[in-house]
Amino acid sequence: MELIDGKAISAQIKLEIAAEVKQIKASGGKIPHLAAILVGHDGGSETYVASKVKTCEEVGFKSSLIRYENNVTEEELLKKVIELNNNPDVDGFIVQLPLPKHISEQKVIETIDYRKDVDGFHPINVGRMSIGLPCFVSATPAGILELLKRYNIETSGKHCVILGRSNIVGKPMASLMMQKAYPGDSTVTVCHSRTKNIKEYCLQADIIIAALGSPEFVRADMVKEGAIIIDVGTTRVPSDKTKSGFKLTGDVKFDEVAPKCSYITPVPGGVGPMTIVSLMKNTLLAGKKAIYK
Amino acid sequence: MELIDGKAISAQIKLEIAAEVKQIKASGGKIPHLAAILVGHDGGSETYVASKVKTCEEVGFKSSLIRYENNVTEEELLKKVIELNNNPDVDGFIVQLPLPKHISEQKVIETIDYRKDVDGFHPINVGRMSIGLPCFVSATPAGILELLKRYNIETSGKHCVILGRSNIVGKPMASLMMQKAYPGDSTVTVCHSRTKNIKEYCLQADIIIAALGSPEFVRADMVKEGAIIIDVGTTRVPSDKTKSGFKLTGDVKFDEVAPKCSYITPVPGGVGPMTIVSLMKNTLLAGKKAIYK
Repeated sequence: MELIDGKAISAQIKLEIAAEVKQIKASGGKIPHLAAILVGHDGGSETYVASKVKTCEEVGFKSSLIRYENNVTEEELLKKVIELNNNPDVDGFIVQLPLPKHISEQKVIETIDYRKDVDGFHPINVGRMSIGLPCFVSATPAGILELLKRYNIETSGKHCVILGRSNIVGKPMASLMMQKAYPGDSTVTVCHSRTKNIKEYCLQADIIIAALGSPEFVRADMVKEGAIIIDVGTTRVPSDKTKSGFKLTGDVKFDEVAPKCSYITPVPGGVGPMTIVSLMKNTLLAGKKAIYK
Repeated sequence: MELIDGKAISAQIKLEIAAEVKQIKASGGKIPHLAAILVGHDGGSETYVASKVKTCEEVGFKSSLIRYENNVTEEELLKKVIELNNNPDVDGFIVQLPLPKHISEQKVIETIDYRKDVDGFHPINVGRMSIGLPCFVSATPAGILELLKRYNIETSGKHCVILGRSNIVGKPMASLMMQKAYPGDSTVTVCHSRTKNIKEYCLQADIIIAALGSPEFVRADMVKEGAIIIDVGTTRVPSDKTKSGFKLTGDVKFDEVAPKCSYITPVPGGVGPMTIVSLMKNTLLAGKKAIYK
Protein backbone atom coordinates (compact mmCIF):
# COMPACT_ATOMS: atom_id res chain seq x y z
CA MET A 1 0.00 0.00 0.00
CA GLU A 2 1.35 3.41 -0.95
CA LEU A 3 0.06 6.57 0.65
CA ILE A 4 -0.77 9.36 -1.78
CA ASP A 5 0.83 12.30 -0.05
CA GLY A 6 -1.17 15.34 -1.09
CA LYS A 7 0.70 17.50 1.37
CA ALA A 8 4.09 16.71 -0.17
CA ILE A 9 2.81 16.97 -3.76
CA SER A 10 1.13 20.28 -3.07
CA ALA A 11 4.31 21.63 -1.47
CA GLN A 12 6.22 20.53 -4.56
CA ILE A 13 3.72 22.24 -6.88
CA LYS A 14 3.90 25.44 -4.86
CA LEU A 15 7.67 25.44 -5.42
CA GLU A 16 7.14 24.91 -9.15
CA ILE A 17 4.67 27.79 -9.33
CA ALA A 18 6.94 30.03 -7.27
CA ALA A 19 9.81 29.27 -9.64
CA GLU A 20 7.67 30.21 -12.63
CA VAL A 21 6.53 33.43 -10.97
CA LYS A 22 10.14 34.30 -10.28
CA GLN A 23 10.93 33.79 -13.94
CA ILE A 24 7.96 35.94 -15.00
CA LYS A 25 9.18 38.65 -12.65
CA ALA A 26 12.74 38.41 -13.94
CA SER A 27 11.60 38.80 -17.52
CA GLY A 28 9.48 41.82 -16.61
CA GLY A 29 6.13 40.06 -16.98
CA LYS A 30 2.99 40.66 -14.99
CA ILE A 31 2.71 38.94 -11.61
CA PRO A 32 -0.52 36.87 -11.49
CA HIS A 33 -3.16 38.52 -9.34
CA LEU A 34 -5.94 36.59 -7.59
CA ALA A 35 -8.82 38.43 -5.95
CA ALA A 36 -11.24 36.83 -3.50
CA ILE A 37 -14.60 38.09 -2.33
CA LEU A 38 -15.65 36.97 1.12
CA VAL A 39 -19.14 37.66 2.44
CA GLY A 40 -19.80 37.35 6.17
CA HIS A 41 -17.80 35.51 8.80
CA ASP A 42 -18.52 31.80 8.36
CA GLY A 43 -15.73 29.90 10.12
CA GLY A 44 -15.01 27.53 7.24
CA SER A 45 -15.04 30.31 4.64
CA GLU A 46 -12.72 32.48 6.75
CA THR A 47 -10.25 29.61 7.02
CA TYR A 48 -10.35 28.76 3.31
CA VAL A 49 -9.94 32.34 2.15
CA ALA A 50 -7.14 33.04 4.62
CA SER A 51 -5.39 29.93 3.38
CA LYS A 52 -5.81 31.02 -0.25
CA VAL A 53 -4.35 34.46 0.50
CA LYS A 54 -1.45 32.89 2.38
CA THR A 55 -0.72 30.49 -0.50
CA CYS A 56 -0.72 33.43 -2.94
CA GLU A 57 2.02 35.00 -0.82
CA GLU A 58 3.98 31.75 -0.73
CA VAL A 59 4.04 31.39 -4.52
CA GLY A 60 4.60 35.10 -5.14
CA PHE A 61 1.17 36.06 -6.52
CA LYS A 62 -0.48 39.35 -5.82
CA SER A 63 -3.74 38.86 -3.93
CA SER A 64 -6.67 41.05 -2.92
CA LEU A 65 -9.30 40.25 -0.35
CA ILE A 66 -12.61 42.05 -0.65
CA ARG A 67 -14.90 41.67 2.36
CA TYR A 68 -18.60 42.29 2.77
CA GLU A 69 -20.87 41.88 5.73
CA ASN A 70 -23.70 39.35 5.54
CA ASN A 71 -26.22 42.07 4.72
CA VAL A 72 -24.59 43.04 1.42
CA THR A 73 -27.18 43.21 -1.37
CA GLU A 74 -27.02 41.01 -4.44
CA GLU A 75 -26.83 44.16 -6.55
CA GLU A 76 -23.82 45.45 -4.68
CA LEU A 77 -22.06 42.10 -4.95
CA LEU A 78 -22.78 41.81 -8.68
CA LYS A 79 -21.46 45.35 -9.17
CA LYS A 80 -18.18 44.30 -7.57
CA VAL A 81 -18.02 41.17 -9.75
CA ILE A 82 -18.42 43.30 -12.86
CA GLU A 83 -15.78 45.69 -11.57
CA LEU A 84 -13.35 42.79 -11.16
CA ASN A 85 -14.29 41.49 -14.62
CA ASN A 86 -13.26 44.84 -16.04
CA ASN A 87 -10.15 45.34 -13.92
CA PRO A 88 -7.20 44.40 -16.15
CA ASP A 89 -4.92 44.01 -13.16
CA VAL A 90 -7.01 41.12 -11.76
CA ASP A 91 -6.24 37.90 -13.66
CA GLY A 92 -8.67 35.68 -11.84
CA PHE A 93 -11.03 35.86 -8.91
CA ILE A 94 -13.30 33.78 -6.75
CA VAL A 95 -16.40 34.46 -4.72
CA GLN A 96 -16.16 32.23 -1.65
CA LEU A 97 -19.26 30.05 -1.26
CA PRO A 98 -21.70 29.65 0.43
CA LEU A 99 -23.34 33.07 0.11
CA PRO A 100 -26.19 34.36 2.32
CA LYS A 101 -29.60 33.04 1.26
CA HIS A 102 -30.81 36.37 -0.18
CA ILE A 103 -28.11 36.23 -2.86
CA SER A 104 -28.36 33.88 -5.85
CA GLU A 105 -25.07 31.97 -6.01
CA GLN A 106 -25.83 30.90 -9.57
CA LYS A 107 -26.38 34.50 -10.68
CA VAL A 108 -23.09 35.52 -9.10
CA ILE A 109 -21.23 32.63 -10.73
CA GLU A 110 -22.70 33.38 -14.15
CA THR A 111 -21.82 37.07 -13.83
CA ILE A 112 -18.13 36.26 -13.41
CA ASP A 113 -16.26 36.58 -16.72
CA TYR A 114 -15.50 32.94 -17.57
CA ARG A 115 -11.99 33.97 -18.58
CA LYS A 116 -11.36 35.00 -14.95
CA ASP A 117 -13.37 32.15 -13.42
CA VAL A 118 -10.45 30.33 -11.79
CA ASP A 119 -12.89 28.31 -9.65
CA GLY A 120 -14.20 26.76 -12.89
CA PHE A 121 -17.84 27.03 -11.79
CA HIS A 122 -19.14 29.09 -14.74
CA PRO A 123 -21.31 27.02 -17.12
CA ILE A 124 -18.94 27.81 -20.00
CA ASN A 125 -16.05 26.21 -18.14
CA VAL A 126 -18.22 23.27 -17.04
CA GLY A 127 -19.44 22.77 -20.62
CA ARG A 128 -15.99 23.07 -22.17
CA MET A 129 -14.66 20.52 -19.70
CA SER A 130 -17.41 18.09 -20.66
CA ILE A 131 -16.71 18.56 -24.38
CA GLY A 132 -12.98 18.15 -23.76
CA LEU A 133 -11.88 21.71 -24.57
CA PRO A 134 -9.28 23.77 -22.70
CA CYS A 135 -10.90 25.46 -19.68
CA PHE A 136 -10.56 26.19 -16.00
CA VAL A 137 -11.21 22.86 -14.26
CA SER A 138 -12.53 23.35 -10.74
CA ALA A 139 -10.00 22.95 -7.99
CA THR A 140 -10.87 19.64 -6.32
CA PRO A 141 -11.23 17.61 -9.55
CA ALA A 142 -8.09 19.23 -10.95
CA GLY A 143 -6.25 18.35 -7.76
CA ILE A 144 -7.33 14.71 -7.98
CA LEU A 145 -6.15 14.46 -11.61
CA GLU A 146 -2.82 15.93 -10.55
CA LEU A 147 -2.40 13.32 -7.80
CA LEU A 148 -3.15 10.48 -10.25
CA LYS A 149 -0.61 11.97 -12.65
CA ARG A 150 2.16 12.52 -10.12
CA TYR A 151 1.85 8.93 -8.89
CA ASN A 152 1.75 7.63 -12.49
CA ILE A 153 -1.46 5.78 -11.78
CA GLU A 154 -2.80 3.96 -14.83
CA THR A 155 -6.41 4.97 -15.54
CA SER A 156 -7.03 3.81 -19.12
CA GLY A 157 -9.54 0.96 -19.24
CA LYS A 158 -9.83 0.95 -15.45
CA HIS A 159 -13.23 0.93 -13.78
CA CYS A 160 -13.56 4.17 -11.87
CA VAL A 161 -16.49 4.26 -9.44
CA ILE A 162 -17.43 7.73 -8.26
CA LEU A 163 -19.50 8.03 -5.09
CA GLY A 164 -21.51 11.25 -5.21
CA ARG A 165 -22.94 13.42 -7.98
CA SER A 166 -22.30 16.93 -6.70
CA ASN A 167 -21.68 19.73 -9.17
CA ILE A 168 -18.29 20.45 -7.68
CA VAL A 169 -16.83 16.93 -7.38
CA GLY A 170 -18.88 13.93 -8.56
CA LYS A 171 -20.11 15.23 -11.91
CA PRO A 172 -16.87 16.90 -13.02
CA MET A 173 -14.84 13.85 -11.92
CA ALA A 174 -17.11 11.66 -14.06
CA SER A 175 -16.61 14.00 -17.03
CA LEU A 176 -12.86 14.00 -16.61
CA MET A 177 -12.34 10.30 -15.98
CA MET A 178 -14.30 9.30 -19.10
CA GLN A 179 -12.44 11.80 -21.31
CA LYS A 180 -10.12 10.53 -24.04
CA ALA A 181 -7.03 11.65 -22.12
CA TYR A 182 -4.63 10.82 -19.31
CA PRO A 183 -5.78 10.74 -16.58
CA GLY A 184 -9.02 9.49 -18.07
CA ASP A 185 -10.09 6.81 -20.54
CA SER A 186 -11.69 5.01 -17.60
CA THR A 187 -14.98 3.18 -17.62
CA VAL A 188 -16.90 5.41 -15.23
CA THR A 189 -19.76 4.56 -12.88
CA VAL A 190 -21.45 7.28 -10.84
CA CYS A 191 -23.25 6.12 -7.66
CA HIS A 192 -25.33 8.34 -5.40
CA SER A 193 -28.10 8.37 -2.81
CA ARG A 194 -30.49 6.57 -5.17
CA THR A 195 -28.07 3.77 -6.02
CA LYS A 196 -29.03 0.33 -4.86
CA ASN A 197 -26.21 -1.92 -3.63
CA ILE A 198 -23.42 0.64 -3.69
CA LYS A 199 -21.22 -2.10 -2.22
CA GLU A 200 -21.49 -4.21 -5.38
CA TYR A 201 -20.31 -1.33 -7.56
CA CYS A 202 -17.46 -0.52 -5.18
CA LEU A 203 -16.29 -4.13 -5.19
CA GLN A 204 -15.88 -3.92 -8.98
CA ALA A 205 -13.87 -0.70 -8.84
CA ASP A 206 -10.22 -0.37 -9.75
CA ILE A 207 -10.43 3.25 -8.62
CA ILE A 208 -12.92 4.62 -6.07
CA ILE A 209 -13.41 8.37 -5.78
CA ALA A 210 -15.47 8.89 -2.63
CA ALA A 211 -17.24 12.24 -2.47
CA LEU A 212 -20.44 11.60 -0.55
CA GLY A 213 -19.66 13.62 2.55
CA SER A 214 -20.60 10.57 4.60
CA PRO A 215 -17.92 9.86 7.24
CA GLU A 216 -16.29 6.40 6.98
CA PHE A 217 -18.89 5.20 4.49
CA VAL A 218 -16.45 3.02 2.54
CA ARG A 219 -15.50 -0.04 4.60
CA ALA A 220 -13.00 -2.82 3.94
CA ASP A 221 -15.64 -5.27 2.75
CA MET A 222 -16.58 -2.83 -0.06
CA VAL A 223 -13.12 -2.66 -1.58
CA LYS A 224 -11.36 -4.98 -4.01
CA GLU A 225 -7.80 -6.04 -3.21
CA GLY A 226 -5.36 -3.61 -4.88
CA ALA A 227 -7.88 -0.83 -5.49
CA ILE A 228 -6.92 2.85 -5.62
CA ILE A 229 -8.88 5.04 -3.22
CA ILE A 230 -9.29 8.79 -3.49
CA ASP A 231 -11.09 10.13 -0.45
CA VAL A 232 -12.66 13.56 -1.01
CA GLY A 233 -14.73 13.57 2.18
CA THR A 234 -13.97 16.16 4.84
CA THR A 235 -16.66 16.06 7.47
CA ARG A 236 -16.05 17.66 10.84
CA VAL A 237 -16.80 14.94 13.34
CA PRO A 238 -16.86 15.83 17.07
CA SER A 239 -13.80 14.49 18.86
CA ASP A 240 -12.44 14.73 22.41
CA LYS A 241 -8.94 13.94 21.17
CA THR A 242 -8.28 17.24 19.41
CA LYS A 243 -7.93 20.78 20.71
CA SER A 244 -10.50 22.08 18.25
CA GLY A 245 -13.07 19.55 19.48
CA PHE A 246 -13.52 18.00 16.07
CA LYS A 247 -11.68 15.78 13.65
CA LEU A 248 -11.69 16.01 9.86
CA THR A 249 -13.07 12.67 8.73
CA GLY A 250 -13.05 11.23 5.23
CA ASP A 251 -15.63 9.09 3.43
CA VAL A 252 -13.35 6.07 3.85
CA LYS A 253 -12.67 4.08 7.00
CA PHE A 254 -8.96 4.49 6.51
CA ASP A 255 -7.46 2.02 9.02
CA GLU A 256 -9.62 -0.78 7.72
CA VAL A 257 -9.45 0.01 3.99
CA ALA A 258 -5.80 1.09 3.59
CA PRO A 259 -4.25 -2.39 3.93
CA LYS A 260 -6.26 -3.61 0.92
CA CYS A 261 -5.33 -0.73 -1.39
CA SER A 262 -2.50 -0.21 -3.82
CA TYR A 263 -2.83 3.56 -3.30
CA ILE A 264 -4.92 5.62 -0.90
CA THR A 265 -5.24 9.30 0.05
CA PRO A 266 -5.37 10.10 3.76
CA VAL A 267 -7.73 12.67 5.33
CA PRO A 268 -6.37 15.18 6.10
CA GLY A 269 -3.29 15.48 3.88
CA GLY A 270 -4.64 13.86 0.69
CA VAL A 271 -6.99 15.68 -1.66
CA GLY A 272 -7.47 18.70 0.64
CA PRO A 273 -4.07 20.36 0.19
CA MET A 274 -4.35 19.88 -3.60
CA THR A 275 -7.44 22.05 -3.83
CA ILE A 276 -5.69 25.31 -3.06
CA VAL A 277 -2.70 24.61 -5.29
CA SER A 278 -5.10 23.82 -8.15
CA LEU A 279 -6.62 27.26 -7.68
CA MET A 280 -3.10 28.69 -7.80
CA LYS A 281 -2.39 26.76 -11.00
CA ASN A 282 -5.57 28.15 -12.57
CA THR A 283 -4.54 31.64 -11.51
CA LEU A 284 -1.14 31.13 -13.11
CA LEU A 285 -2.86 29.96 -16.32
CA ALA A 286 -5.15 33.00 -16.17
CA GLY A 287 -2.18 35.32 -15.66
CA LYS A 288 -0.38 33.78 -18.64
CA LYS A 289 -3.61 33.86 -20.69
CA ALA A 290 -2.84 30.24 -21.44
CA ILE A 291 -6.47 29.14 -21.81
CA TYR A 292 -8.35 32.25 -22.91
CA LYS A 293 -6.87 35.33 -24.59
CA MET B 1 -41.59 -7.15 -24.86
CA GLU B 2 -42.99 -3.74 -25.77
CA LEU B 3 -41.73 -1.83 -28.78
CA ILE B 4 -40.97 1.84 -28.10
CA ASP B 5 -42.62 3.46 -31.07
CA GLY B 6 -40.69 6.64 -31.73
CA LYS B 7 -42.58 7.21 -34.94
CA ALA B 8 -45.96 7.27 -33.19
CA ILE B 9 -44.70 9.34 -30.25
CA SER B 10 -43.06 11.87 -32.53
CA ALA B 11 -46.27 12.17 -34.58
CA GLN B 12 -48.16 12.76 -31.33
CA ILE B 13 -45.69 15.45 -30.23
CA LYS B 14 -45.92 17.17 -33.59
CA LEU B 15 -49.70 17.42 -33.09
CA GLU B 16 -49.15 18.86 -29.61
CA ILE B 17 -46.72 21.46 -30.92
CA ALA B 18 -49.04 22.31 -33.84
CA ALA B 19 -51.92 22.83 -31.38
CA GLU B 20 -49.78 25.17 -29.31
CA VAL B 21 -48.67 27.13 -32.38
CA LYS B 22 -52.32 27.49 -33.41
CA GLN B 23 -53.10 28.90 -29.99
CA ILE B 24 -50.16 31.32 -30.17
CA LYS B 25 -51.41 32.45 -33.57
CA ALA B 26 -54.97 32.84 -32.31
CA SER B 27 -53.85 35.02 -29.44
CA GLY B 28 -51.78 37.18 -31.78
CA GLY B 29 -48.41 35.90 -30.58
CA LYS B 30 -45.25 35.47 -32.62
CA ILE B 31 -44.95 32.27 -34.66
CA PRO B 32 -41.69 30.47 -33.73
CA HIS B 33 -39.06 30.83 -36.42
CA LEU B 34 -36.26 28.31 -36.97
CA ALA B 35 -33.42 29.10 -39.34
CA ALA B 36 -30.97 26.52 -40.66
CA ILE B 37 -27.61 27.06 -42.31
CA LEU B 38 -26.53 24.34 -44.72
CA VAL B 39 -23.05 24.32 -46.22
CA GLY B 40 -22.38 22.18 -49.30
CA HIS B 41 -24.34 19.22 -50.61
CA ASP B 42 -23.56 16.26 -48.34
CA GLY B 43 -26.32 13.70 -48.87
CA GLY B 44 -27.01 13.10 -45.19
CA SER B 45 -27.03 16.80 -44.37
CA GLU B 46 -29.37 17.57 -47.28
CA THR B 47 -31.81 14.93 -46.04
CA TYR B 48 -31.69 16.07 -42.40
CA VAL B 49 -32.16 19.74 -43.22
CA ALA B 50 -34.97 19.06 -45.70
CA SER B 51 -36.68 16.98 -43.04
CA LYS B 52 -36.29 19.77 -40.46
CA VAL B 53 -37.78 22.34 -42.84
CA LYS B 54 -40.66 19.98 -43.64
CA THR B 55 -41.37 19.39 -39.95
CA CYS B 56 -41.42 23.14 -39.34
CA GLU B 57 -44.17 23.38 -41.95
CA GLU B 58 -46.09 20.51 -40.35
CA VAL B 59 -46.14 22.13 -36.91
CA GLY B 60 -46.77 25.63 -38.25
CA PHE B 61 -43.36 27.20 -37.58
CA LYS B 62 -41.75 29.71 -39.87
CA SER B 63 -38.47 28.36 -41.27
CA SER B 64 -35.59 29.79 -43.26
CA LEU B 65 -32.94 27.83 -45.08
CA ILE B 66 -29.66 29.59 -45.76
CA ARG B 67 -27.36 27.77 -48.16
CA TYR B 68 -23.67 28.15 -48.86
CA GLU B 69 -21.38 26.33 -51.21
CA ASN B 70 -18.51 24.29 -49.78
CA ASN B 71 -16.05 27.07 -50.49
CA VAL B 72 -17.70 29.56 -48.13
CA THR B 73 -15.10 31.15 -45.84
CA GLU B 74 -15.24 30.83 -42.07
CA GLU B 75 -15.47 34.59 -41.86
CA GLU B 76 -18.52 34.71 -44.11
CA LEU B 77 -20.23 31.95 -42.15
CA LEU B 78 -19.50 33.61 -38.80
CA LYS B 79 -20.87 36.88 -40.17
CA LYS B 80 -24.13 35.12 -40.99
CA VAL B 81 -24.26 33.53 -37.53
CA ILE B 82 -23.88 36.95 -35.93
CA GLU B 83 -26.57 38.32 -38.24
CA LEU B 84 -28.96 35.58 -37.10
CA ASN B 85 -28.00 36.22 -33.46
CA ASN B 86 -29.10 39.82 -33.95
CA ASN B 87 -32.20 39.15 -36.01
CA PRO B 88 -35.14 39.44 -33.59
CA ASP B 89 -37.41 37.52 -35.96
CA VAL B 90 -35.26 34.35 -35.69
CA ASP B 91 -35.99 32.53 -32.42
CA GLY B 92 -33.53 29.72 -32.87
CA PHE B 93 -31.15 28.44 -35.52
CA ILE B 94 -28.87 25.58 -36.32
CA VAL B 95 -25.76 25.16 -38.42
CA GLN B 96 -25.95 21.70 -39.93
CA LEU B 97 -22.82 19.67 -39.18
CA PRO B 98 -20.38 18.49 -40.45
CA LEU B 99 -18.77 21.61 -41.91
CA PRO B 100 -15.95 21.66 -44.48
CA LYS B 101 -12.54 21.11 -42.94
CA HIS B 102 -11.38 24.72 -43.41
CA ILE B 103 -14.08 25.92 -41.00
CA SER B 104 -13.80 25.42 -37.23
CA GLU B 105 -17.05 23.81 -36.09
CA GLN B 106 -16.28 24.71 -32.49
CA LYS B 107 -15.78 28.37 -33.37
CA VAL B 108 -19.09 28.42 -35.26
CA ILE B 109 -20.92 26.72 -32.36
CA GLU B 110 -19.45 29.14 -29.82
CA THR B 111 -20.40 32.12 -31.95
CA ILE B 112 -24.08 31.17 -31.87
CA ASP B 113 -25.96 33.09 -29.19
CA TYR B 114 -26.65 30.38 -26.58
CA ARG B 115 -30.20 31.74 -26.23
CA LYS B 116 -30.84 30.77 -29.87
CA ASP B 117 -28.76 27.55 -29.76
CA VAL B 118 -31.67 25.13 -30.20
CA ASP B 119 -29.19 22.33 -31.03
CA GLY B 120 -27.86 22.67 -27.48
CA PHE B 121 -24.22 22.38 -28.56
CA HIS B 122 -22.96 25.68 -27.09
CA PRO B 123 -20.76 25.14 -24.00
CA ILE B 124 -23.15 27.25 -21.90
CA ASN B 125 -26.02 24.88 -22.68
CA VAL B 126 -23.81 21.83 -22.14
CA GLY B 127 -22.58 23.25 -18.82
CA ARG B 128 -26.04 24.25 -17.61
CA MET B 129 -27.32 20.78 -18.43
CA SER B 130 -24.55 19.21 -16.38
CA ILE B 131 -25.26 21.49 -13.42
CA GLY B 132 -28.99 20.75 -13.73
CA LEU B 133 -30.15 24.22 -14.83
CA PRO B 134 -32.78 24.99 -17.49
CA CYS B 135 -31.17 24.94 -20.93
CA PHE B 136 -31.51 23.69 -24.49
CA VAL B 137 -30.80 19.96 -24.29
CA SER B 138 -29.48 18.60 -27.57
CA ALA B 139 -31.99 16.81 -29.72
CA THR B 140 -31.05 13.14 -29.46
CA PRO B 141 -30.67 13.04 -25.66
CA ALA B 142 -33.84 15.11 -25.26
CA GLY B 143 -35.68 12.69 -27.55
CA ILE B 144 -34.53 9.70 -25.50
CA LEU B 145 -35.70 11.31 -22.25
CA GLU B 146 -39.06 11.98 -23.88
CA LEU B 147 -39.43 8.32 -24.92
CA LEU B 148 -38.64 7.14 -21.38
CA LYS B 149 -41.23 9.60 -20.05
CA ARG B 150 -43.99 8.75 -22.51
CA TYR B 151 -43.61 5.04 -21.71
CA ASN B 152 -43.51 5.75 -17.97
CA ILE B 153 -40.27 3.85 -17.66
CA GLU B 154 -38.90 3.85 -14.12
CA THR B 155 -35.32 5.13 -14.05
CA SER B 156 -34.70 5.97 -10.38
CA GLY B 157 -32.16 3.62 -8.85
CA LYS B 158 -31.82 1.69 -12.09
CA HIS B 159 -28.43 0.86 -13.54
CA CYS B 160 -28.14 2.69 -16.84
CA VAL B 161 -25.20 1.58 -18.99
CA ILE B 162 -24.30 3.99 -21.77
CA LEU B 163 -22.22 2.68 -24.65
CA GLY B 164 -20.27 5.51 -26.23
CA ARG B 165 -18.87 8.81 -24.94
CA SER B 166 -19.57 11.18 -27.83
CA ASN B 167 -20.25 14.84 -27.11
CA ILE B 168 -23.66 14.64 -28.75
CA VAL B 169 -25.05 11.43 -27.22
CA GLY B 170 -22.96 9.49 -24.69
CA LYS B 171 -21.76 12.33 -22.48
CA PRO B 172 -25.04 14.30 -22.34
CA MET B 173 -27.02 11.08 -21.72
CA ALA B 174 -24.72 10.31 -18.79
CA SER B 175 -25.26 13.82 -17.41
CA LEU B 176 -29.02 13.56 -17.76
CA MET B 177 -29.48 10.04 -16.40
CA MET B 178 -27.50 10.80 -13.22
CA GLN B 179 -29.44 14.04 -12.59
CA LYS B 180 -31.73 14.32 -9.56
CA ALA B 181 -34.84 14.24 -11.78
CA TYR B 182 -37.19 12.06 -13.76
CA PRO B 183 -36.05 10.61 -16.08
CA GLY B 184 -32.80 10.36 -14.17
CA ASP B 185 -31.68 9.33 -10.70
CA SER B 186 -30.04 6.30 -12.31
CA THR B 187 -26.72 4.78 -11.39
CA VAL B 188 -24.83 5.53 -14.59
CA THR B 189 -21.95 3.64 -16.20
CA VAL B 190 -20.28 4.97 -19.34
CA CYS B 191 -18.46 2.40 -21.49
CA HIS B 192 -16.40 3.17 -24.58
CA SER B 193 -13.62 1.93 -26.83
CA ARG B 194 -11.20 1.61 -23.90
CA THR B 195 -13.59 -0.38 -21.72
CA LYS B 196 -12.55 -3.94 -20.98
CA ASN B 197 -15.34 -6.54 -20.87
CA ILE B 198 -18.19 -4.36 -22.11
CA LYS B 199 -20.31 -7.49 -21.99
CA GLU B 200 -20.04 -7.70 -18.19
CA TYR B 201 -21.28 -4.14 -17.78
CA CYS B 202 -24.13 -4.69 -20.23
CA LEU B 203 -25.24 -7.81 -18.37
CA GLN B 204 -25.67 -5.71 -15.21
CA ALA B 205 -27.73 -3.04 -16.95
CA ASP B 206 -31.41 -2.34 -16.32
CA ILE B 207 -31.23 0.20 -19.15
CA ILE B 208 -28.77 0.13 -22.05
CA ILE B 209 -28.33 3.21 -24.22
CA ALA B 210 -26.26 2.09 -27.19
CA ALA B 211 -24.55 4.92 -29.05
CA LEU B 212 -21.34 3.44 -30.39
CA GLY B 213 -22.14 3.57 -34.09
CA SER B 214 -21.11 -0.08 -34.31
CA PRO B 215 -23.80 -2.07 -36.19
CA GLU B 216 -25.38 -4.91 -34.21
CA PHE B 217 -22.75 -4.65 -31.47
CA VAL B 218 -25.17 -5.57 -28.66
CA ARG B 219 -26.07 -9.28 -28.86
CA ALA B 220 -28.52 -11.37 -26.90
CA ASP B 221 -25.83 -12.83 -24.63
CA MET B 222 -24.94 -9.30 -23.45
CA VAL B 223 -28.42 -8.42 -22.22
CA LYS B 224 -30.16 -9.23 -18.94
CA GLU B 225 -33.70 -10.60 -19.08
CA GLY B 226 -36.18 -7.69 -18.84
CA ALA B 227 -33.72 -4.94 -19.75
CA ILE B 228 -34.73 -1.73 -21.50
CA ILE B 229 -32.80 -1.03 -24.69
CA ILE B 230 -32.45 2.34 -26.37
CA ASP B 231 -30.66 1.99 -29.69
CA VAL B 232 -29.14 5.23 -30.95
CA GLY B 233 -27.06 3.63 -33.72
CA THR B 234 -27.86 4.51 -37.32
CA THR B 235 -25.16 3.13 -39.55
CA ARG B 236 -25.79 2.78 -43.28
CA VAL B 237 -24.97 -0.83 -44.04
CA PRO B 238 -24.93 -1.95 -47.70
CA SER B 239 -27.96 -4.07 -48.56
CA ASP B 240 -29.29 -5.69 -51.71
CA LYS B 241 -32.80 -5.78 -50.23
CA THR B 242 -33.51 -2.04 -50.41
CA LYS B 243 -33.90 0.33 -53.33
CA SER B 244 -31.37 2.75 -51.87
CA GLY B 245 -28.79 -0.02 -51.66
CA PHE B 246 -28.31 0.38 -47.91
CA LYS B 247 -30.12 -0.35 -44.70
CA LEU B 248 -30.12 1.79 -41.55
CA THR B 249 -28.68 -0.49 -38.90
CA GLY B 250 -28.70 0.05 -35.16
CA ASP B 251 -26.10 -0.82 -32.53
CA VAL B 252 -28.31 -3.67 -31.32
CA LYS B 253 -28.95 -7.01 -33.05
CA PHE B 254 -32.68 -6.46 -32.79
CA ASP B 255 -34.12 -9.89 -33.69
CA GLU B 256 -31.91 -11.60 -31.16
CA VAL B 257 -32.13 -9.02 -28.35
CA ALA B 258 -35.79 -7.94 -28.54
CA PRO B 259 -37.28 -11.13 -27.05
CA LYS B 260 -35.25 -10.65 -23.85
CA CYS B 261 -36.24 -6.99 -23.32
CA SER B 262 -39.10 -5.36 -21.48
CA TYR B 263 -38.83 -2.35 -23.85
CA ILE B 264 -36.75 -1.76 -26.96
CA THR B 265 -36.47 0.91 -29.65
CA PRO B 266 -36.34 -0.28 -33.26
CA VAL B 267 -34.03 1.17 -35.94
CA PRO B 268 -35.45 2.92 -37.87
CA GLY B 269 -38.53 4.25 -36.10
CA GLY B 270 -37.17 4.52 -32.55
CA VAL B 271 -34.85 7.30 -31.45
CA GLY B 272 -34.43 8.74 -34.97
CA PRO B 273 -37.86 10.36 -35.40
CA MET B 274 -37.59 11.87 -31.90
CA THR B 275 -34.52 13.89 -32.81
CA ILE B 276 -36.32 16.28 -35.13
CA VAL B 277 -39.31 16.79 -32.84
CA SER B 278 -36.91 17.58 -29.99
CA LEU B 279 -35.44 20.31 -32.15
CA MET B 280 -38.98 21.58 -32.76
CA LYS B 281 -39.67 21.54 -29.02
CA ASN B 282 -36.52 23.56 -28.39
CA THR B 283 -37.59 26.02 -31.08
CA LEU B 284 -40.98 26.36 -29.41
CA LEU B 285 -39.26 27.00 -26.07
CA ALA B 286 -37.03 29.57 -27.76
CA GLY B 287 -40.04 31.26 -29.36
CA LYS B 288 -41.80 31.44 -25.99
CA LYS B 289 -38.59 32.60 -24.30
CA ALA B 290 -39.31 29.84 -21.81
CA ILE B 291 -35.67 29.16 -20.96
CA TYR B 292 -33.84 32.40 -21.61
CA LYS B 293 -35.35 35.89 -21.72
